[in-house]
Amino acid sequence: MATKPESIDPGYTGLRTKVETLPTQYYFDEAHYERELERIWYCNWICLGRSSSVSEPRAYQVFDLGSQQILVVRGDDKRLRAFHNTCRHRGSALCSNETGRFPGGRITCPYHSWIYDLDGNLLRTTSLTQAEGFSPEDYSLYGVAIEEFAGFVFARLEGGQGLSVEESIDGYTGRLEQWPLGDMVVGHTFRRVVQCNWKVVWENYGECLHCPNIHPTLSKLVPLFARGLQEKTDDPHWQAHAQDDDPKYCGGLRDGAKTWSMDGQVHGKPIATLSEDARRAGQSFADCWPSAYFHGHLDYAHVTFMRPLGPEQTEYTKIWLFPKETLEDDDFPLANVVDFVKKVVEEDLGICEQTQKGMRSRRHEAGVIMPEEYYLKDFQDWVRRQLD
Amino acid sequence: MATKPESIDPGYTGLRTKVETLPTQYYFDEAHYERELERIWYCNWICLGRSSSVSEPRAYQVFDLGSQQILVVRGDDKRLRAFHNTCRHRGSALCSNETGRFPGGRITCPYHSWIYDLDGNLLRTTSLTQAEGFSPEDYSLYGVAIEEFAGFVFARLEGGQGLSVEESIDGYTGRLEQWPLGDMVVGHTFRRVVQCNWKVVWENYGECLHCPNIHPTLSKLVPLFARGLQEKTDDPHWQAHAQDDDPKYCGGLRDGAKTWSMDGQVHGKPIATLSEDARRAGQSFADCWPSAYFHGHLDYAHVTFMRPLGPEQTEYTKIWLFPKETLEDDDFPLANVVDFVKKVVEEDLGICEQTQKGMRSRRHEAGVIMPEEYYLKDFQDWVRRQLD
Amino acid sequence: MATKPESIDPGYTGLRTKVETLPTQYYFDEAHYERELERIWYCNWICLGRSSSVSEPRAYQVFDLGSQQILVVRGDDKRLRAFHNTCRHRGSALCSNETGRFPGGRITCPYHSWIYDLDGNLLRTTSLTQAEGFSPEDYSLYGVAIEEFAGFVFARLEGGQGLSVEESIDGYTGRLEQWPLGDMVVGHTFRRVVQCNWKVVWENYGECLHCPNIHPTLSKLVPLFARGLQEKTDDPHWQAHAQDDDPKYCGGLRDGAKTWSMDGQVHGKPIATLSEDARRAGQSFADCWPSAYFHGHLDYAHVTFMRPLGPEQTEYTKIWLFPKETLEDDDFPLANVVDFVKKVVEEDLGICEQTQKGMRSRRHEAGVIMPEEYYLKDFQDWVRRQLD
Repeated sequence: MATKPESIDPGYTGLRTKVETLPTQYYFDEAHYERELERIWYCNWICLGRSSSVSEPRAYQVFDLGSQQILVVRGDDKRLRAFHNTCRHRGSALCSNETGRFPGGRITCPYHSWIYDLDGNLLRTTSLTQAEGFSPEDYSLYGVAIEEFAGFVFARLEGGQGLSVEESIDGYTGRLEQWPLGDMVVGHTFRRVVQCNWKVVWENYGECLHCPNIHPTLSKLVPLFARGLQEKTDDPHWQAHAQDDDPKYCGGLRDGAKTWSMDGQVHGKPIATLSEDARRAGQSFADCWPSAYFHGHLDYAHVTFMRPLGPEQTEYTKIWLFPKETLEDDDFPLANVVDFVKKVVEEDLGICEQTQKGMRSRRHEAGVIMPEEYYLKDFQDWVRRQLD
Repeated sequence: MATKPESIDPGYTGLRTKVETLPTQYYFDEAHYERELERIWYCNWICLGRSSSVSEPRAYQVFDLGSQQILVVRGDDKRLRAFHNTCRHRGSALCSNETGRFPGGRITCPYHSWIYDLDGNLLRTTSLTQAEGFSPEDYSLYGVAIEEFAGFVFARLEGGQGLSVEESIDGYTGRLEQWPLGDMVVGHTFRRVVQCNWKVVWENYGECLHCPNIHPTLSKLVPLFARGLQEKTDDPHWQAHAQDDDPKYCGGLRDGAKTWSMDGQVHGKPIATLSEDARRAGQSFADCWPSAYFHGHLDYAHVTFMRPLGPEQTEYTKIWLFPKETLEDDDFPLANVVDFVKKVVEEDLGICEQTQKGMRSRRHEAGVIMPEEYYLKDFQDWVRRQLD
Repeated sequence: MATKPESIDPGYTGLRTKVETLPTQYYFDEAHYERELERIWYCNWICLGRSSSVSEPRAYQVFDLGSQQILVVRGDDKRLRAFHNTCRHRGSALCSNETGRFPGGRITCPYHSWIYDLDGNLLRTTSLTQAEGFSPEDYSLYGVAIEEFAGFVFARLEGGQGLSVEESIDGYTGRLEQWPLGDMVVGHTFRRVVQCNWKVVWENYGECLHCPNIHPTLSKLVPLFARGLQEKTDDPHWQAHAQDDDPKYCGGLRDGAKTWSMDGQVHGKPIATLSEDARRAGQSFADCWPSAYFHGHLDYAHVTFMRPLGPEQTEYTKIWLFPKETLEDDDFPLANVVDFVKKVVEEDLGICEQTQKGMRSRRHEAGVIMPEEYYLKDFQDWVRRQLD
């Protein structure tokens, strides 16, 4: 808390002027939460999960998003479609199981047997006559924009900003695209309901000032994190060490470590497609606001999904993705990577819940974003734009 | 979904033009739910249950209705009275047990021993003096309109439409009145909290388009139901079979069946007072919106009570009523009728809960009432009138 | 319910004209509850509990009050300070344990290690530079007014009425101050979540019209209570017995009883500092609206704390305080006093919950305060003034 602004090195990546956080009530107010569902969660590409459970034609999966249910189905042409899980007749949910298959390529409502094709067209009702003013073509299922991308299902309930899925993932192009995510296989899943607002999870993810305190093990693996920094240029005097190849200054993993794991070593099949830079860094990141972020390492990737359950409750899911060969190897020490990441996650979720509690103070109308927390400024500016 | 309007037979009972359902938010919005409590549940005759638990003078029973508690008591003159279960002094609930007896014919508040007679008049307080402006006659219990009818207790909290209880039960006069409901005895009770709006239960009850799908056993017993119809004239081409006495066309139970039961046979004492028509039909119905409906069969009746617990939660109770002699017969196979009806109920409640879920879709602003669902139009028109 | 106003004795303490209670919706309406939190619970001195758990320098305790958490800490100067349990950076709760100690006399936020001294001054952040516009002196912890008084911790979140803690306790000066509360020790604690509004508990406490009914044992100990009175002058004809030393007329405990206990006898060390009057009365009272009331007896005291948990839910805590020597005496029959008081409490809380239930009646817009319930008028007038 010493450096004067005038002595800061050129190229410094931190914030130079004080920035206030979002109003604190954005993190627990019920009406504001509904507004965020509408303006943020229902208007952006949301990463719902892997597409592997709908890999076969006529297979379906139902995903929850806020108060909405999205029915995703693979057509006979192998392309995905998505609909609200709602019959146009009297609103019955079409599917009550999470996953299944539509034999005959027909979606039949369990209530009155209205039958739709996999494009959502109403093929027939069971009424013996057709009322004046009723046209089946007016009663197609409510469509939802859907994309399959890199082995994931992305859906957008409404309007949106015109971005493509790829454009919605900051850090995909030129970075995470080096990982063959579409071909990789889930080796482990972690799921927990966290007692905090979804933005608290993102803001925790977006800065490393908390790393020395909260993540002793991770901070040993990534020496720059032990200094509370994410990039070497987050240090206002970074130029003094510009040529230093000590990871404490230049970033990346500690000497001798290759990947995020207990021993730092690679035991699975390395991803062959990585650039020299990606291999050297040992960690790459990409973010898809508001629903998911991606980590790529030399031999695996892990992906985090968030789902808002309420103003102060979020479902947090992480999956670990490996090359198929890695998981087929009985000797592969899965716990070596899973336990490492899970420890970091547990540390994060604990402090997220404690943050949520403190924010209820009536005096705390807003907090302050510190210089190293520039990611939070970007994120909160985006939230503000979405809400406008 | 084929018949053109112009080719419909005269006398057709279905709807001829398209009708929209109530707005979907009427099924889950909290503020709208409160409005329905006030305009519908607190202003109509509500069937609270059997009067048998208050059969003796000075016996009482407390019934819940929305957020209100109604204390029903039988006077020494054998007539029922009802009051809010609330002392006029500082609002204490007068009775905490569901049923009981007022010895001495006095209602004594447990808090400060204010004493009321069974007409609700305040007889005495325990204060040593009487403040200026305080007149005991201003502090009678809050009265509730109450009627005993056919062995049931009906209460109306407020105003109401001026209908009598009998007028409030559509299908009673000339139909259900053939059953000696007042003398019949409860042989079985089924109760479940259903996760749906109360109107979903009524709308499920009011049409048989869902019968082929949802009720295979019932549809075997009532062949017209297997065609998705309730009345023979629900078929736009009913005249082609106008003289046909196949129950598939003319209605009623399948050949050889006499009553709603597993084997279709009557094992209890038949109701002697039924008309030839009622006997032939094997099933008769009457409805008391919004709280109850009645089924009469050759040897028993069953009655369904609904109570709203929240916008998406309803208490569903069904009782089976038999002639006293039937229940005294140790060989009477009670399960033969109970299990049959219970199967139908479980099927209905399952699809009601699934309907409630699908209605949360933001796109589903309203559904459509199909031609055979004319009962729903009547019901929803009534709901709309009540809310005006 | 007989005495005419004109025949009332001079000096009569009851109400002479009819008074309406607060509107009933003040006891369950959610928005009104929030208003009471703001205007009453956050603006008055609240008795949080004993200060014994923060007796050592650097010890802290976190107290809940409504949605707020108050961190109370003893400074190295032995004086208490209090703050919102919230870091000024991004709002993390500073302490997650209920009690603990700050080694080094520093409050360190667990999230990003912002460090505050025990006066709440921000000593350092962990950022490497200081943004323009950021001054540490603007980021002291949010302070809370705090007082240690008679062994209790009192906090006031906001403004307040300018009263001192002592002035906030009606009946302290000249009455409860005779008890050495600061030196007494907790011998027993009773805690229960009661399903009623906090005001229902106060109103139950504030009158004895309910005593004959609800408290048979207490009414035997305090004969005036058996008549539904708190003071002898609550009887409109009190002068007829003005010289009578029967406790039925003059108040105090029954002949031969000395204290509130099962056998009425004193087994512990008597409080030496009591006046002759206090000793004779056998019971003394003091109230600190809205959070606590105090009972003093010859050999012990007991104190009741209330905390609002919701419009229809209150946390009720009672502690029994004894001279240290009494608790060190292995033969002291603790149950003799604890069981007596606990019986009274259970009786009160039962009828409080029943009162809450009856108040939901839509017809019961307000109740009536009876002549002997003058304390309720004072209390409700105070509530009204706070809300204005």
